[in-house]
Amino acid sequence: MGDTDVTVVGAGISGLTAAWRLAQAGRRVTVLEGNDRVGGRTLNHRFASGEVAEIGGQWVGPTQDRILGLLGELNLDTFATWNQGNNLTLFGGRLKPYRGTIPKFAAHVLLDIGQAQWRLDRLAQQIDLDDPSRHPKAPLWDSMTFAEWIRRQVKTAQARTVFDLASAAVFAAKPHDLSFLHVLFYIKSGTNLDTLLGVDKGAQQDRIVGGSQRICEELTLRLGSAVRLAQPVRALKQTRDHVELITDQGSHRAKRVIFAVPPTMVLRITQEPLLPGWRDQLLQRLPQGAVIKCMAMYETPFWRERGLSGQATSEVGPVRLTFDNSVPGSRKGVLMGFIEGDEARQWSSRNEGQRQAEVLRCFARYYGDHALQPLEYVDKCWADEAFARGCYAALFPPGVWGNGAARLRDPCGRLHFAGTETATRWMGYFDGAVQAAERAAAEVLALT
Amino acid sequence: MGDTDVTVVGAGISGLTAAWRLAQAGRRVTVLEGNDRVGGRTLNHRFASGEVAEIGGQWVGPTQDRILGLLGELNLDTFATWNQGNNLTLFGGRLKPYRGTIPKFAAHVLLDIGQAQWRLDRLAQQIDLDDPSRHPKAPLWDSMTFAEWIRRQVKTAQARTVFDLASAAVFAAKPHDLSFLHVLFYIKSGTNLDTLLGVDKGAQQDRIVGGSQRICEELTLRLGSAVRLAQPVRALKQTRDHVELITDQGSHRAKRVIFAVPPTMVLRITQEPLLPGWRDQLLQRLPQGAVIKCMAMYETPFWRERGLSGQATSEVGPVRLTFDNSVPGSRKGVLMGFIEGDEARQWSSRNEGQRQAEVLRCFARYYGDHALQPLEYVDKCWADEAFARGCYAALFPPGVWGNGAARLRDPCGRLHFAGTETATRWMGYFDGAVQAAERAAAEVLALT
Repeated sequence: MGDTDVTVVGAGISGLTAAWRLAQAGRRVTVLEGNDRVGGRTLNHRFASGEVAEIGGQWVGPTQDRILGLLGELNLDTFATWNQGNNLTLFGGRLKPYRGTIPKFAAHVLLDIGQAQWRLDRLAQQIDLDDPSRHPKAPLWDSMTFAEWIRRQVKTAQARTVFDLASAAVFAAKPHDLSFLHVLFYIKSGTNLDTLLGVDKGAQQDRIVGGSQRICEELTLRLGSAVRLAQPVRALKQTRDHVELITDQGSHRAKRVIFAVPPTMVLRITQEPLLPGWRDQLLQRLPQGAVIKCMAMYETPFWRERGLSGQATSEVGPVRLTFDNSVPGSRKGVLMGFIEGDEARQWSSRNEGQRQAEVLRCFARYYGDHALQPLEYVDKCWADEAFARGCYAALFPPGVWGNGAARLRDPCGRLHFAGTETATRWMGYFDGAVQAAERAAAEVLALT
Repeated sequence: MGDTDVTVVGAGISGLTAAWRLAQAGRRVTVLEGNDRVGGRTLNHRFASGEVAEIGGQWVGPTQDRILGLLGELNLDTFATWNQGNNLTLFGGRLKPYRGTIPKFAAHVLLDIGQAQWRLDRLAQQIDLDDPSRHPKAPLWDSMTFAEWIRRQVKTAQARTVFDLASAAVFAAKPHDLSFLHVLFYIKSGTNLDTLLGVDKGAQQDRIVGGSQRICEELTLRLGSAVRLAQPVRALKQTRDHVELITDQGSHRAKRVIFAVPPTMVLRITQEPLLPGWRDQLLQRLPQGAVIKCMAMYETPFWRERGLSGQATSEVGPVRLTFDNSVPGSRKGVLMGFIEGDEARQWSSRNEGQRQAEVLRCFARYYGDHALQPLEYVDKCWADEAFARGCYAALFPPGVWGNGAARLRDPCGRLHFAGTETATRWMGYFDGAVQAAERAAAEVLALT
């Protein structure tokens, strides 16, 4: 039985940052985490040979000032994502090298891609990040899927496939899962499309020494015993002057609560009084993206010897995107691949052996048969994770932004809402998690 | 602590029907209901003067053979929905009388409506109700919203408004909330568009004497002490040979469990082992529709004296649809109205006084100032209902049917799934609730 000023639900980046800001301001804080680890949607994997690479979220990049600031405070260093050599594309059955973000295509395809990208960026810049529904065209844009926009505005099959891949890479979802308005919001939230998709100067530019889960581990060191693991919050009661939270282990009392979990997880906590109908319905309409992140370790990063970067994009699944996720200071090579959206849900029901075989087949398609013989293989299906139930973040289908989704971040009595889904800048990213945390902490500080 | 062959979660039509079929076959059954009443999404309201009318689901109609059969078994009678006199439309600021389903419009608007209806019905008939994703065009149809289809295929503003109203009436949702594939599925599931929308020969043809909640009350009489109220299931554990269910009141053990609750409610039960990732994600992607059902009682059904049926359709909200919901044998008149979709979520956060004033203003717009002075007013916001969190049923946004939604009705170990959302015929209606119940009961009977 604890009694604190503020209880934070969720020990991911957002929850722990909120807790730390409150602790720095002298408030008594408790963080209740359902899992037996901190990190939320970040998770380090330690290979048998000792190297650490991420099986959850991992990247930071320019314009992500809040997470970069936090890394500085925590004395965490970054290093550049491996980005030397040629990338590969597999389109029309042919493997081709390229450099940069967009594969080599025929001129008319490149023009098609370029025009669509220009239009997306131009429309995105018109969005009010505080509430995208304020745009005069929001009713139209929020009533169509991104798939529909692609069908209308992108003429060539190859360019369409590129936008499908971009959707997978950015949202862990298919274009049909997304409101077009949300896509515009997300592009502006993450600066522009080049920044979202890029490695150098983009959202995939840098990695964190020791793995991104260290952010949460460092915050936890500073918060000490305030962080309680394996305490899933099952129920809460709001009274006039406090909130009581019931976990599997006991009960905690706080003046205010900050939720720092994906929207769908808030629904799963029995609340008294009930959440208002509109808020429950809003949370119902924000499902998580779906991704299986896969890594194979090899004796060496053998693709580098052939002048390859380890980055591939492909119209053949289930692994359509790969990266070189090797660890600096190690001679070993790590290939990383993503299975996303519909395919992630399909492959989540296969057993691990089937998944490993198929992922390695995909790696071999890009990097040769040597990829079939890793030292070690690991994957993680984030839909199976008890307290995330999907990654990277919540998706906004048509009709959600236009019906009050900006109110997601409004407090509800003594309940406040953090988590990257409540961010206006870099929603869905570490940076958004920090922005949301600092906004929620400031709300609470003003009130307690 | 109970110990039964089968525990059913949810005492709506589907759950109680499943339980009764199992009891009839000699199985020991328990029904656990979270609420302090049976009925699920049906709910009778008793006015001060004693008349009973429904503040939840209420209608049955032709081709709904399963619910009509059940009514026969339970000795429940039906009566015709009041459908005499002129209907009213309010379009372009003008109130006009009409008969039948479609208001009087200019010829080119009627042609526009007729052609769109013809196309919808024709496409719907091609759908495989067992799995709409089998249609060759399913990837296209499931990647667009119904709003997008209307924008492309319906040319006149008035005809578009008619389809907006049809979407509200049938789904309690806006066209942008719905996958076009789901709309086609739903039309075929409910026979055709005329049947879905119609009163005579349609889904609104008949009402149940004593109110539709009597279906559940009669089933409960037959099941006796097997039905346990105020027992919300919070957690369950599946082991090799049984399932343990934990409610606020205690624990129950069963060989098999049938869920007969909306998909979003399944998510809120803590499960051990966790539901598979694909199933959790599927449930996340099935939010409930939103409706506030409103009734006002008057000394007489005064609109009838003016030759009006009490049915209105309007492009002005929040009440865009009304019905005469008077009770046979009473001299009183009851007007009933629906607030649906986006507007239901908006109005759910207003207080009851504001809602009453606005609803009566809408009634007055159609039926004159006399409507401002009811004897009694009542409304119910179904998003606020703890164990439904929305009505009429779950919505299928783009990308859900195409990514395995037909598996919603697959068992998961010892868990089976009923509820109208798992029906193939008349999904979302009482009839679908019965079909799903009988299918789930048959599954369990074959195994226990």
